[in-house]
Amino acid sequence: MNTQNKIIFTRGVPATESFPKEEMGEATQKAIRAHGDTILQYGSAFGFMPLREWLAEWHGADTENVLCSNGSLQIIEFICTILLQSDSRTVFVEAPTYDRTITILRKHGAEIVSIPLNSDGPDITAIQDALETYNPSFFYTIPDFQNPAGATCSEAKRRQLVALAREHDFLLLEDSPYRELRYRGETQPTLREFAPERVVQLSSFSKLIGPGPRLGYAIGPKNLLREIATVAENTYITPGLLAHGSVYEFCRAGHLEPQIDRLKKLYAPRLQATLDALDKYLPETKPTRPDGGFFLSLTLPKGVSIIDVMDRAAEVELILADGRGFFANGGGEHFLRIPFCALTKHQISEGVARLAEVVQN
Amino acid sequence: MNTQNKIIFTRGVPATESFPKEEMGEATQKAIRAHGDTILQYGSAFGFMPLREWLAEWHGADTENVLCSNGSLQIIEFICTILLQSDSRTVFVEAPTYDRTITILRKHGAEIVSIPLNSDGPDITAIQDALETYNPSFFYTIPDFQNPAGATCSEAKRRQLVALAREHDFLLLEDSPYRELRYRGETQPTLREFAPERVVQLSSFSKLIGPGPRLGYAIGPKNLLREIATVAENTYITPGLLAHGSVYEFCRAGHLEPQIDRLKKLYAPRLQATLDALDKYLPETKPTRPDGGFFLSLTLPKGVSIIDVMDRAAEVELILADGRGFFANGGGEHFLRIPFCALTKHQISEGVARLAEVVQN
Repeated sequence: MNTQNKIIFTRGVPATESFPKEEMGEATQKAIRAHGDTILQYGSAFGFMPLREWLAEWHGADTENVLCSNGSLQIIEFICTILLQSDSRTVFVEAPTYDRTITILRKHGAEIVSIPLNSDGPDITAIQDALETYNPSFFYTIPDFQNPAGATCSEAKRRQLVALAREHDFLLLEDSPYRELRYRGETQPTLREFAPERVVQLSSFSKLIGPGPRLGYAIGPKNLLREIATVAENTYITPGLLAHGSVYEFCRAGHLEPQIDRLKKLYAPRLQATLDALDKYLPETKPTRPDGGFFLSLTLPKGVSIIDVMDRAAEVELILADGRGFFANGGGEHFLRIPFCALTKHQISEGVARLAEVVQN
Repeated sequence: MNTQNKIIFTRGVPATESFPKEEMGEATQKAIRAHGDTILQYGSAFGFMPLREWLAEWHGADTENVLCSNGSLQIIEFICTILLQSDSRTVFVEAPTYDRTITILRKHGAEIVSIPLNSDGPDITAIQDALETYNPSFFYTIPDFQNPAGATCSEAKRRQLVALAREHDFLLLEDSPYRELRYRGETQPTLREFAPERVVQLSSFSKLIGPGPRLGYAIGPKNLLREIATVAENTYITPGLLAHGSVYEFCRAGHLEPQIDRLKKLYAPRLQATLDALDKYLPETKPTRPDGGFFLSLTLPKGVSIIDVMDRAAEVELILADGRGFFANGGGEHFLRIPFCALTKHQISEGVARLAEVVQN
């Protein structure tokens, strides 16, 4: 085994070779030329108006229902600032879920209730049970190509989620950064489409253009967005308008659709390579078989803990993430997330081979 | 009196005509070409390394003592998150002080103690008195061309401040966004130069290039910066690297110094026009006579309150800021801040004439 090359199975980042540098270079210059007086100045905490208009059109929403920030994680922070200071500090999350959201929820003193995630979305019965005890402020869910599991919520479950949110009067926070990266199968409707009045859909350009500009956005009820804009203004006055203007010009020039096509062509074979390698070396771990996104996940065999595997993997230059970090209320001792986008097919195959050797010995 | 044109004396923003659009357009494109793989990707919460190195060199600091964020206001938020969860929630501020900082301090539950600001800096005796009662976590001060007063702290007072901070073990948070915009007189040393181990100096490019890219930075003790980087990472993962790279290339190309010279040539006559108009129309208000920056301030005559003046000014299309917003512990009923940078000499003269009419009638 070649242990000279470190293989990193921890980073959910886009492939460097995916960045549309030429088009972004042109777009930034065009943005400053056309909108310099606006994007070099202070402005609205809702973000750059032409970008909001473009996003509204793209997502079938009204402009007043779109707010652009510096990445979408910070919007989660703003929402916590607003919603978790009132009566209910309870938040439902999937188990597993995005670890950075758990960190933010904890910082805001949330009482986190974990809902088990199945291959077709969160366990609806578990939500119903939890609703007998708890009165959540919101349910944080990643319906498409979930981070870290790779699961996608079925349409039936989306409808059930929305019905429960209406019946029990809680907000759905729909995080959908991977949604456009579907490699096979049919697009599901967003939760927002079913219930625009009680869903805040978050997304970003981090996985489509690149994370560096930091451009996340929320589509949601305008009253809540107004509250978010106030918190945002009190935090950073104005979001990064240079990035907003640049991404706007990139999109307006028609670069986004071909860029998404390129990403699918780049990432789909990497997902397939990961599944092929797992089927070959570690079939007993029954990995999730996502239809898109950045991640798949697997369950280590009984008696094999992620902590042992992490330590021994590090010895053969394979870097793994601690599965426990994705579970807010315990668990994850046998959970492994594998991000596949920023690795070549060779690295994936070599990494899974190393993983198998560590797991099986 | 011409009431057709609204004159806005509320906005502390740079003049639109000051933006170096041509140079920034080139710089962004160069940045993406040279550093695209880095500035379109996730990266360190300390910001773009070459920019940190450039700033360290410019400010005579080590790179590890420089952290770049999305505007400097958010760094104040991070510092509050870190420092105000421990024993002491007391923070000293100048009276008057920057209103957005007051908002952040209140959000973090700070016990704010106001120190009267004189024309040569904060009242040292008042600090000494307050230190007999309070044990502050930090003192937030704007030593150069203070917002909103326009005062600059004398060297003697800077030395006294540092001595008090050392003796009573508190941090100095030195906010210096206007520092480079000195129109006359001699540059004073920074507080950080006197006590790098207990000063965090904040600055930004908002007043030098433009606020839209959102590029603020901190120079301070590396242990505290590491804590700030952790909070920053948990908030937005990575700051806006597209902006960091673009501003870096702008600076590296040698554009900053000539840009600052242009700003001084643009703004100094506007400051003079404001003073001339006040001397002509409202000599009794004894305006501050700043040596640089964005603001001067004045005290309305006895019996004339800012609230009355604001209301009556609005009737003649003159928009004024409520002075009380700059005082954390009450006061400001007779305080008026006048930002002069984003107004033409004609607008300034006309605005002060309208102000005089309102004040004197």
